[in-house]
Amino acid sequence: MSGHPAAPAWQVSQWFNASAPLDLIALRGRVVVLHAFQMLCPGCVLHGVPQAERIHQQFAGEGVAVVGLHTVFEHHEAMQPVSLQAFLHEFRVTHPVAVDAPVPGRRIPATMQAYGMQGTPTLVLIDRAGRIRRQHFGRLDDLTVGAEVIRLVCEAS
Amino acid sequence: MSGHPAAPAWQVSQWFNASAPLDLIALRGRVVVLHAFQMLCPGCVLHGVPQAERIHQQFAGEGVAVVGLHTVFEHHEAMQPVSLQAFLHEFRVTHPVAVDAPVPGRRIPATMQAYGMQGTPTLVLIDRAGRIRRQHFGRLDDLTVGAEVIRLVCEAS
Amino acid sequence: MSGHPAAPAWQVSQWFNASAPLDLIALRGRVVVLHAFQMLCPGCVLHGVPQAERIHQQFAGEGVAVVGLHTVFEHHEAMQPVSLQAFLHEFRVTHPVAVDAPVPGRRIPATMQAYGMQGTPTLVLIDRAGRIRRQHFGRLDDLTVGAEVIRLVCEAS
Amino acid sequence: MSGHPAAPAWQVSQWFNASAPLDLIALRGRVVVLHAFQMLCPGCVLHGVPQAERIHQQFAGEGVAVVGLHTVFEHHEAMQPVSLQAFLHEFRVTHPVAVDAPVPGRRIPATMQAYGMQGTPTLVLIDRAGRIRRQHFGRLDDLTVGAEVIRLVCEAS
Repeated sequence: MSGHPAAPAWQVSQWFNASAPLDLIALRGRVVVLHAFQMLCPGCVLHGVPQAERIHQQFAGEGVAVVGLHTVFEHHEAMQPVSLQAFLHEFRVTHPVAVDAPVPGRRIPATMQAYGMQGTPTLVLIDRAGRIRRQHFGRLDDLTVGAEVIRLVCEAS
Repeated sequence: MSGHPAAPAWQVSQWFNASAPLDLIALRGRVVVLHAFQMLCPGCVLHGVPQAERIHQQFAGEGVAVVGLHTVFEHHEAMQPVSLQAFLHEFRVTHPVAVDAPVPGRRIPATMQAYGMQGTPTLVLIDRAGRIRRQHFGRLDDLTVGAEVIRLVCEAS
Repeated sequence: MSGHPAAPAWQVSQWFNASAPLDLIALRGRVVVLHAFQMLCPGCVLHGVPQAERIHQQFAGEGVAVVGLHTVFEHHEAMQPVSLQAFLHEFRVTHPVAVDAPVPGRRIPATMQAYGMQGTPTLVLIDRAGRIRRQHFGRLDDLTVGAEVIRLVCEAS
Repeated sequence: MSGHPAAPAWQVSQWFNASAPLDLIALRGRVVVLHAFQMLCPGCVLHGVPQAERIHQQFAGEGVAVVGLHTVFEHHEAMQPVSLQAFLHEFRVTHPVAVDAPVPGRRIPATMQAYGMQGTPTLVLIDRAGRIRRQHFGRLDDLTVGAEVIRLVCEAS
């Protein structure tokens, strides 16, 4: 189980669907599904975001925390938080969503940079000990995702 | 063929995917498919906008003009033209899209009001003589739409 | 409108969903949609047969006759009429379906041979005068099919 | 972990996609996914069978055995083994499939009766110790199935 990198801390400028900020320290002991997306990325809207919501609906009761991360790296003016908020409302996203903190003078926001993400959607599976066990850019089918999430749930904490 | 109301003029604040403004007078003699949508309306993003694009791709060559109309009546701040522009780019919308002109002090924009639309998506089929032959709020399946568009195409101009 | 071949007569060994045999002479004056399929052909089961049923449901009222043609050219023992009957019942096919007449010593049944069909599914559009206006092997999308059927409906009989 | 019933032995008249008969004794130590279906049941053809094949493709390498069970309880003449064989070939089913043994004078075949199945599709998850851990009539989504299969894989054998 060694050799897996620790998941970098999240750098967040704003939270939606969360009564208080979330962080990996507080989530230690839970399996964390981090879903990086952009509200105007078709693969995210059509596949990634609904899948993240399904994971949340189905596994929240067994110690799985699903967190959306809005990693805007293009069309920055088009995807400001006021637009994201309406998107989350209209698409009935109920899991917590963080706005990845912009970095002045850079196109790529801070957390996206720290994780070395290549684009959106990206799914990151983080184990109970806070280590990255899988990071995938693009689509993963539900059968795979259900299996991989539960594999981490089944590990001793 | 009498008894069909004339389609009201469009009141537009901005055009995308058009080298010059379009209007119903100039389109007289063509069948016009007007698709009213909002970029953050799930039924529009998942169904209406791709269908409008399919109609454009398939029937543009036979005198059918497809025009999108961005009728923002909720979350106005979230769906400004800068956001719409990125949406059209990312979702590969190539047909002309008009921004329905906002009316100061009113929630509903001008053209949406003039047509008495109940929401989005709304599909309006306008015949060669500029008359509204069908106005439908909600989803219409492709078989129906293909049939109704071509029925108007087949009418003598 | 000249130059379109006359649709060959159907050679049928058995009918389902029909109180009496149908033929092209009796259907003259109507637009006929002939859908050739096999009950164990995935493209037929998943796409062609449900589409033929949708055409039937939607356009039967405007002089369109949809006829399924079970053209068994492989796995003959597997797709005998008793199996087809159960298939039509279970998949809720309500339009008339003909069993293409087997030809002793030949793999390909009689009507399939007469039309020169390459495989299943094949959609044949026959105009009011009994001429083949389109014959397509493979999938056609609903937008195209709705348009092409109505184009024939709109022609003077 | 106690309290789960032992999975009844399979009563099989014929195997497809298997070089030798399979049985639960020989599969002890593996997680078994038993998928009961009928080749003319739409829910099976459209959902259950492709899902069973996906489970086979994805999890065969980690000690999961997927077995299809053709439990014909209606239209018996329509779904004889010769038809099933063509179905499996055409729909590219590669996992082993057993024909549930008919019982003379009874509509319901032997294994279906022994498991008390209510219809098709039915998915049965059997743990490494040969006990039924889940039996579900109808559709289960991929996220649930992926999770439940891997939960059993993760159990000590």
